[in-house]
Amino acid sequence: MKKEKINLLGAGLIGSLLAIYLRKRGLDVAIYEKRQDWRQVDTSGEGRSINMALSYRGWKALERAGIKDKVIPYTQPMYGRRIHDEHGDTFFQPYGKENQAIYSISRNAFNKILLDEAEEQGASIYFQHKVEHVNVAKREVTFSLADGSSKNIAAEVLIGSDGAYSALRNAFQSQLRFNFNQQYVSHGYKELSIPTTPEGDFAMDPNALHIWPRGKFMLIALPNLDKSFTCTLFLPFEGYKVSFENIHDEQDVEQVFKTHFNDAYNLMPTLLQDFKRNPTAALINTECYPWTDNNTLLIGDAAHAMVPFYGQGMNCGFEDCSILDGLVGKYGTSSWDLVFGKFQKGRKPDTDAICQLAMDNFVEMSDNVADPKFLIRKKIEARLHELFPEEWVPLYSMVTFSEMKYSEAYAIGKLQEKVMDRVMSDPLITQNWDSLDYEEILHQVVVAGAV
Amino acid sequence: MKKEKINLLGAGLIGSLLAIYLRKRGLDVAIYEKRQDWRQVDTSGEGRSINMALSYRGWKALERAGIKDKVIPYTQPMYGRRIHDEHGDTFFQPYGKENQAIYSISRNAFNKILLDEAEEQGASIYFQHKVEHVNVAKREVTFSLADGSSKNIAAEVLIGSDGAYSALRNAFQSQLRFNFNQQYVSHGYKELSIPTTPEGDFAMDPNALHIWPRGKFMLIALPNLDKSFTCTLFLPFEGYKVSFENIHDEQDVEQVFKTHFNDAYNLMPTLLQDFKRNPTAALINTECYPWTDNNTLLIGDAAHAMVPFYGQGMNCGFEDCSILDGLVGKYGTSSWDLVFGKFQKGRKPDTDAICQLAMDNFVEMSDNVADPKFLIRKKIEARLHELFPEEWVPLYSMVTFSEMKYSEAYAIGKLQEKVMDRVMSDPLITQNWDSLDYEEILHQVVVAGAV
Repeated sequence: MKKEKINLLGAGLIGSLLAIYLRKRGLDVAIYEKRQDWRQVDTSGEGRSINMALSYRGWKALERAGIKDKVIPYTQPMYGRRIHDEHGDTFFQPYGKENQAIYSISRNAFNKILLDEAEEQGASIYFQHKVEHVNVAKREVTFSLADGSSKNIAAEVLIGSDGAYSALRNAFQSQLRFNFNQQYVSHGYKELSIPTTPEGDFAMDPNALHIWPRGKFMLIALPNLDKSFTCTLFLPFEGYKVSFENIHDEQDVEQVFKTHFNDAYNLMPTLLQDFKRNPTAALINTECYPWTDNNTLLIGDAAHAMVPFYGQGMNCGFEDCSILDGLVGKYGTSSWDLVFGKFQKGRKPDTDAICQLAMDNFVEMSDNVADPKFLIRKKIEARLHELFPEEWVPLYSMVTFSEMKYSEAYAIGKLQEKVMDRVMSDPLITQNWDSLDYEEILHQVVVAGAV
Repeated sequence: MKKEKINLLGAGLIGSLLAIYLRKRGLDVAIYEKRQDWRQVDTSGEGRSINMALSYRGWKALERAGIKDKVIPYTQPMYGRRIHDEHGDTFFQPYGKENQAIYSISRNAFNKILLDEAEEQGASIYFQHKVEHVNVAKREVTFSLADGSSKNIAAEVLIGSDGAYSALRNAFQSQLRFNFNQQYVSHGYKELSIPTTPEGDFAMDPNALHIWPRGKFMLIALPNLDKSFTCTLFLPFEGYKVSFENIHDEQDVEQVFKTHFNDAYNLMPTLLQDFKRNPTAALINTECYPWTDNNTLLIGDAAHAMVPFYGQGMNCGFEDCSILDGLVGKYGTSSWDLVFGKFQKGRKPDTDAICQLAMDNFVEMSDNVADPKFLIRKKIEARLHELFPEEWVPLYSMVTFSEMKYSEAYAIGKLQEKVMDRVMSDPLITQNWDSLDYEEILHQVVVAGAV
């Protein structure tokens, strides 16, 4: 049998990991990438999020691809959120049980590791190949190259791992009976930074994701290996006093930071330069269906771009790769339409669920985390989890520290939410939360789940 | 003041009517159209619906543009639906009050009238200008021409009246923070025809829209001026016994028609040829926002493509033109961003409403119209309208025979639906519908509307 050649569009994190998986299956793999080889050039300040939060699903997918151990040294564990209030006081909110953490990693460094590995495993990588046109019915791709020339390929199998603005998805949109939804959220973001102290140390707790929640806007910071922090400012584009449209000059920047993020401000000597230099980026959510047609497939952000508020975009894309690889193992490569069909059918409810959770989580991150009642709610949930470790797992933990299907986590989360709403409706809850009948609360979820 | 030049993309029904309006305001207008001048060539069998149903909103917009009288001779009134059951029996269901009708008109003839008028009024029309690229920020459009050359224009004002697959909207999608949703419905359609009788007469009632409702599928027919009928067959693409995927050959076509549309079958001598020759077309619904940026605007299907089941796509697009013209009259042409901003803000809730109604109406057309309980429901509503002509206007009439805002009609329709659901829940309704307390029913709507 002729060995199929798999052509991937996009050599980002998802495309690189998928290439490793497919090479390990003995398949021929070529990756076409629009940008130049970023392993040789500095691509910081591109306006893309430069720190990723790697969690359980991502780690499992790396492990199965045999690349986990190479990644570990580049990560910095964050065991919880450190909340900064308006007075500069902070408190710590663990993400899960002791030792459960999410891991900060630089996108650039991470992509280099994966791409090197893909290449080492024998994948061919073609940089500066920009997709100009895809004919889905013929699986023909026309690229424009750096020298202005163009190149055509006819692919046997074509996979779009080319992100939220996928060229393959664009072709699907105009060439198939294709349902597609793209939605921008009201907020944009800008990257800023907190350097090391003069002594070369972390300027804040290095084992936390720092959040300055301010209701309609927020600042977050993730630690880097070089002991600096990468900060991301999330503001509404317009319609509010504190919004990108109302920041016209350096004075406005300073005023926002001094007023709302004063402790961070004191750690940000390059704030004004960063603010000016770094672009204001938008946040898109996309959902679409089908993901496959005629031996082509969308995967990762190309199939389901989500907003970053659950820290799952990359983890979900890695899980995509792992699931797809499992299906290749199970069904073989004699019918890609079968494999891709199984993939989209099984996976779509899960990516719908995580897209929705990511959208909803902005409110939790920017607002609730600072609310005393929300903190009690979290404490009750933590207690429930402590008492009934198998029966009550908080939604965040199901999503972040397990491989439970996202759609299942979503459904259980909805049940828990209903029960917790009822628990929290007790006007004396702030006083008596410690002495609740926890068994009875758990029972409510069990009953609700049964009907 | 320099006279602004308005550049329209698309010389279809909406673009042509808009050009007439704008010329009457004394503005310079150029229309760029992808296709060749269809006034000189036969474009039948293109797979686009070739009969339109013109109703009140459309007529009013034509009237305001001063073109109504030229259109009247090309139309054929349809006073109601004529339902064909499986035995070949038919019954008539009026659309509204006596003399209220919707008007069948050939798309091609109609477009010719409007385009001739636009040209006569001084609009320049450039055919065979296919949009290759739009730069929204610069309002630059690159066209490819029939001879293979390309042409650039820099527009002062640019309006996309270029339909459901709008090139300007595509540019918005990739260049703006643009919310966009496209959804294909499960059904496709194919056009067929019923010629005149050997004596040269209409083969069926010429003053009705004929429907063969069969639950998951249906056939409809609209009369033409030449006394033929244009039929449209709506079938699911797949997943049902009667679906396009299950029609493989002439035998299958005959079997479906003999079994389900036998009376029509006997009037369709060219059925097999028509079925083979005419494409199976898909049905798309699109919603998007914003419609305007930087002196550019989407209008008609480009802004809101709907499925055809309420017969409002064209009427809604014409109403768009009329409303936009009213805003130009009110605010002048010194700030197009002001005019376009007012337009999108005011109009968007209405087009959302009619898109939704059109989607919902498939069930009414293909299924309910044949249901005896539904017919009683319609009779009760007709009686209510008769007794309280101002207070209870059926939803269909508000949409089809008035200029009430679609969103308002939608909201009132929802109230009526609630009340009618309650009325119809009476198990004896088929016997006692004639003796209901109609005043009390009306009162329920009034009360519900007040809360």
